[in-house]
Amino acid sequence: MLKKPLILVTNDDGITAPGIRTLIKIMNSIGDVVVVAPDSPQSGMGHAITINETLYCNKEKINDGPQREFSTSGTPADCVKLAVHELLDRRPDLCVSGINHGSNSSINVIYSGTMSAAIEAGMEGIPAIGFSLLDYSWDADFSVFEKYIKKICFTVLNFGIKKGVVLNVNFPNPKKNSIRGIKICRQADANWLEKFDKRKSPLGRDYYWLSGEFVNHDKGKDTDEYALSKGYISIVPVQFDLTAHKEIEELKKWRLND
Amino acid sequence: MLKKPLILVTNDDGITAPGIRTLIKIMNSIGDVVVVAPDSPQSGMGHAITINETLYCNKEKINDGPQREFSTSGTPADCVKLAVHELLDRRPDLCVSGINHGSNSSINVIYSGTMSAAIEAGMEGIPAIGFSLLDYSWDADFSVFEKYIKKICFTVLNFGIKKGVVLNVNFPNPKKNSIRGIKICRQADANWLEKFDKRKSPLGRDYYWLSGEFVNHDKGKDTDEYALSKGYISIVPVQFDLTAHKEIEELKKWRLND
Repeated sequence: MLKKPLILVTNDDGITAPGIRTLIKIMNSIGDVVVVAPDSPQSGMGHAITINETLYCNKEKINDGPQREFSTSGTPADCVKLAVHELLDRRPDLCVSGINHGSNSSINVIYSGTMSAAIEAGMEGIPAIGFSLLDYSWDADFSVFEKYIKKICFTVLNFGIKKGVVLNVNFPNPKKNSIRGIKICRQADANWLEKFDKRKSPLGRDYYWLSGEFVNHDKGKDTDEYALSKGYISIVPVQFDLTAHKEIEELKKWRLND
Repeated sequence: MLKKPLILVTNDDGITAPGIRTLIKIMNSIGDVVVVAPDSPQSGMGHAITINETLYCNKEKINDGPQREFSTSGTPADCVKLAVHELLDRRPDLCVSGINHGSNSSINVIYSGTMSAAIEAGMEGIPAIGFSLLDYSWDADFSVFEKYIKKICFTVLNFGIKKGVVLNVNFPNPKKNSIRGIKICRQADANWLEKFDKRKSPLGRDYYWLSGEFVNHDKGKDTDEYALSKGYISIVPVQFDLTAHKEIEELKKWRLND
């Protein structure tokens, strides 16, 4: 590639989060970087978009560097839409989202703002990768993953990703595991066992905090959860055709028109 | 089934929307109904959940009828979590979401609060169906679909749905088509060509409205879009394992550990 690739960087923890600042620094070594990211944390936003409210967008300069930066009042999916259809004068060659402070492995992909941005870019036909680290702390150590991020991004820039597919990359917590390499995985069949913490407001009104426990039912050794538990970086190819194709013939047997 | 089935009803247009009121009325003829729905419209919320804010929940009595009703300050996915893990004393036999005022066919499933509620219930192992009508108007005519909704719900209560699958049911606009029956379909490969309407606030600040045009690239006759365009009710089996399984072997060829 003679021309430098154009790389769109976004996230769901907000434009000032250490995870995105690390990702911007790494992307500056690969291409021309434009950052379009939420002005405040958007964790758990899933694939929300802003249709009943207005969107603000501001030029930003958070750190030194060649990158151009914009913050928006919207969700991660809004950021990608605004970047592609309003802010950028050419299509990005790559969209990277993250590095998320916290896991987006297994069923978490469904709730993930980080991955919704990658999926939105994928829907636009842009090769896209979400990066997440299994450490929720703000001062998490992202540095050890720089070489892996570069390798994955260069590979995607060189080979592309199949239409309709984006990558969900999760990094194990380097405080708990030494990093053993990369595994291509499927999404583990896990879920959240929810608990609601019921409290009373100073005015006497009941309210709830959602809190849950992640439960992995999946004994497979080909899952992202298994790879991460063994110190591997997991990559799951994620699709946004949600059709359960194998079920189509089964449902036809219901003969709903009889 | 000797005991009446317990049916959880939710939506994303808010608990007072005509679509959910219609669905409650129909479900009252099938089983014991508990409504847990957002207190305000949540369209476009995707699979958002409320993790950084508190949740309120109020008992409601919007219409006469045997149903128990609760409104919450949360998203559709929150409503299902709160219902299953806090409000209900037994597991629902069925969860229905909708009837949405507007289409959730094709790629709209990704942005849909209606479908996120159904998917959340599916993740809990509860048979779940999202219903949507291709008419955004508040006074849309839902009455013609009552017999189809009953038939689909009875069939699901009798036969169940495969683990990991929920149903995305869309109704054509009866003002534009006469209803020709039901088709089992795949999700059409379509997307939104976004435009941003840039305006200036009274204080001189630029802001945007998201507005787009739905574009169907998919020429297949087995898609939900095709069925709906011909006056059929579309049913797409939807899964929440997002793994692009066929791509796993392809990505292994990248040899990222070399």
